[in-house]
Amino acid sequence: MSNFLENQNWRYATKKFDATKKIATEDLNTLKEAIRLSSSSYGLQPYKVIIVENPELRAKIQPAAWGQSQIVDASHLIVFANETQLQNENIDNYINNISNTRNIPVEALSGYADFMKSKLVTLSDEAKSIWTAKQTYLALGNLLNAAAELKIDVTPMEGFVPEQVNEILGLDKLGLNTSLIATLGYRHEGDDTQHYKKVRKSEEELFITL
Amino acid sequence: MSNFLENQNWRYATKKFDATKKIATEDLNTLKEAIRLSSSSYGLQPYKVIIVENPELRAKIQPAAWGQSQIVDASHLIVFANETQLQNENIDNYINNISNTRNIPVEALSGYADFMKSKLVTLSDEAKSIWTAKQTYLALGNLLNAAAELKIDVTPMEGFVPEQVNEILGLDKLGLNTSLIATLGYRHEGDDTQHYKKVRKSEEELFITL
Repeated sequence: MSNFLENQNWRYATKKFDATKKIATEDLNTLKEAIRLSSSSYGLQPYKVIIVENPELRAKIQPAAWGQSQIVDASHLIVFANETQLQNENIDNYINNISNTRNIPVEALSGYADFMKSKLVTLSDEAKSIWTAKQTYLALGNLLNAAAELKIDVTPMEGFVPEQVNEILGLDKLGLNTSLIATLGYRHEGDDTQHYKKVRKSEEELFITL
Repeated sequence: MSNFLENQNWRYATKKFDATKKIATEDLNTLKEAIRLSSSSYGLQPYKVIIVENPELRAKIQPAAWGQSQIVDASHLIVFANETQLQNENIDNYINNISNTRNIPVEALSGYADFMKSKLVTLSDEAKSIWTAKQTYLALGNLLNAAAELKIDVTPMEGFVPEQVNEILGLDKLGLNTSLIATLGYRHEGDDTQHYKKVRKSEEELFITL
């Protein structure tokens, strides 16, 4: 079996973390790099990734996240916050990054810049936020898969009140919105759900061949 | 370096596939299993994954996807189509799957069923479709990562007209909408973009520690 599938079968959304076990710095750096290398549409990465280390902030987030214990028990808490605005400046910053990374004059990229601006900056505020939020799911996917390789547990969450988490973390004024929360660490040996069989649609139900 | 990071650094969004190289059945099955095992919110997997083998359908999709050559040159074309409706029936099917897989009476899951229904079935049609579309990005992430392990190239695409692809594949009448397209195969040795340096935000730009 491929390592990837083996890791997928190993992982599950941990209900209870072992609060005594911490992720080593080296492993955390690997996970951050996995997030950083994520694919995104146009390569724009229209989000920030917030590592919440402050225990008081984590305690404040817990009631805004349906009281879930993982918020405070996990080794680490990561918030994926999508950019709520996409302006010409965002595209220009990205173009500058391409220019610097690949040693291409900015002028040679102006057609691509204009194309992205025409597609993205013209969207409504709501459509921008939906689109940037979607990209965070790819970044979460990278986190899940990189962590499974390291036998680190990740519980992703959509169960929170974004407005409250935004307020607690001061995200509004940064033009950010909480899209996803991931709690990371090591499963508690007493978490029975680790022994449950994985529930997935059958191949027949999921795939259509045309 | 972890295999995951090594694979991430190997992959790129192929601009030109080698149309003579086909993905072996065994590898395709691994990729399908990687998609099937994807995480999703509540584990609902609210989408179908369409493997478009018919070359005429692929030729029809190409103009609806900005004329991109990968649509016809890639070994395989996969369409991620999110469910546009979420009704009580969808939740009940999922609950039945949990019940059968884990040997738990359906009655013991009724609280969980009611909770999901209260959160999801009550959403507006638009909110449902946005939410189900987001889940397809996690499935795409699994495809990208599993393929990279097998040194299979994947070019994901958002550049298409969903209404047109829906029409070509007859998705409307199945309650589905084209969320993402992925083209899969092997990079053409003449695709210069494979030698370009990867452009990503710096760690400093992407991460915030609080």
